[in-house]
Amino acid sequence: MSATRLPHISVLRLGHRRERDKRITSHLGLTARAFGADEIYLAGEEDPSALETWNSVSKRFGGNFQCRYEDKPLSLLRKFSKDCGNGESGSIIHLTMYGEPWKEALPKINLDKPMIIVVGGTKVPGEVYRLANHNISIGNQPHSEVAALAIFLDSLVGDIDDQVHFSDGELRVIPNAVRKQVVNVEEE
Amino acid sequence: MSATRLPHISVLRLGHRRERDKRITSHLGLTARAFGADEIYLAGEEDPSALETWNSVSKRFGGNFQCRYEDKPLSLLRKFSKDCGNGESGSIIHLTMYGEPWKEALPKINLDKPMIIVVGGTKVPGEVYRLANHNISIGNQPHSEVAALAIFLDSLVGDIDDQVHFSDGELRVIPNAVRKQVVNVEEE
Repeated sequence: MSATRLPHISVLRLGHRRERDKRITSHLGLTARAFGADEIYLAGEEDPSALETWNSVSKRFGGNFQCRYEDKPLSLLRKFSKDCGNGESGSIIHLTMYGEPWKEALPKINLDKPMIIVVGGTKVPGEVYRLANHNISIGNQPHSEVAALAIFLDSLVGDIDDQVHFSDGELRVIPNAVRKQVVNVEEE
Repeated sequence: MSATRLPHISVLRLGHRRERDKRITSHLGLTARAFGADEIYLAGEEDPSALETWNSVSKRFGGNFQCRYEDKPLSLLRKFSKDCGNGESGSIIHLTMYGEPWKEALPKINLDKPMIIVVGGTKVPGEVYRLANHNISIGNQPHSEVAALAIFLDSLVGDIDDQVHFSDGELRVIPNAVRKQVVNVEEE
């Protein structure tokens, strides 16, 4: 599935723990960016280093990915479910290993309004299940929120053309079957 | 793409660092298992806790996923590229952000022989690029080896039926659009 015109896509990372989740959360944000999300909200423990990593990658590799800390994620979701900024309800997608199989859920998702994809940490409050328009599982085995987000976004967004989407980066990787090839755009 | 009969699939995790990579490597192995790989080799620093996590999940959630530490990963790849156990060469796939786009590479992969999917850590030796039959990128943006492995395996293996593939587990998640539902099989 690949929509020709996509809604604004935000990712909400719940329950971040600064020490334990540092690299998983970092990878989660980079995955959100690489697969076409517009922004990520970090909730849980504050962690400027995560935001620094994401901003640094965006500066070097381009694109317009946004990130910020959100100290009241449930309030954000409650508000978004009623009014996503234009007076209409937004769409909340909760990725969980307990949810409805993603291939069944994907065609039901409304792509005409802004979307928040909620990705849990350890314990996700029951209210998130109720606020979500869709509780979706990428398989029902334990694996990784990074894997789940990647597959979900890739299925939803479809191909993004890296060279277009991230065209303003300082660095550009040239796909190559046999070796590393990176171009520093300023030196070109 | 979904093959009806798949080769034996191993994942080789290079350059594991016990402290820094603990959870990324843990998620990588769980992702390998959940998306249909048969085993994972852990290379880099020894880390019994990673193996314990994977074995514990397999015990609780079923399946026949194997894991072990490999102290000579390059020797393993050199040997595998000549003889994968049946006297014939195996297939080595290296996932890297610098490689050939995955959708172009997928149809070229030989699915008739055992496969090792190499997933890098920090610095991947140049020899890995040369030993690999395919150096494949899941997009050319920096993101996560967990995301790359998930998308690659999902594309290669296609749907696996969790309820069949992991039918011998003690715990079974019942997909549910509104709430958590887990069955303890022994108590059923």
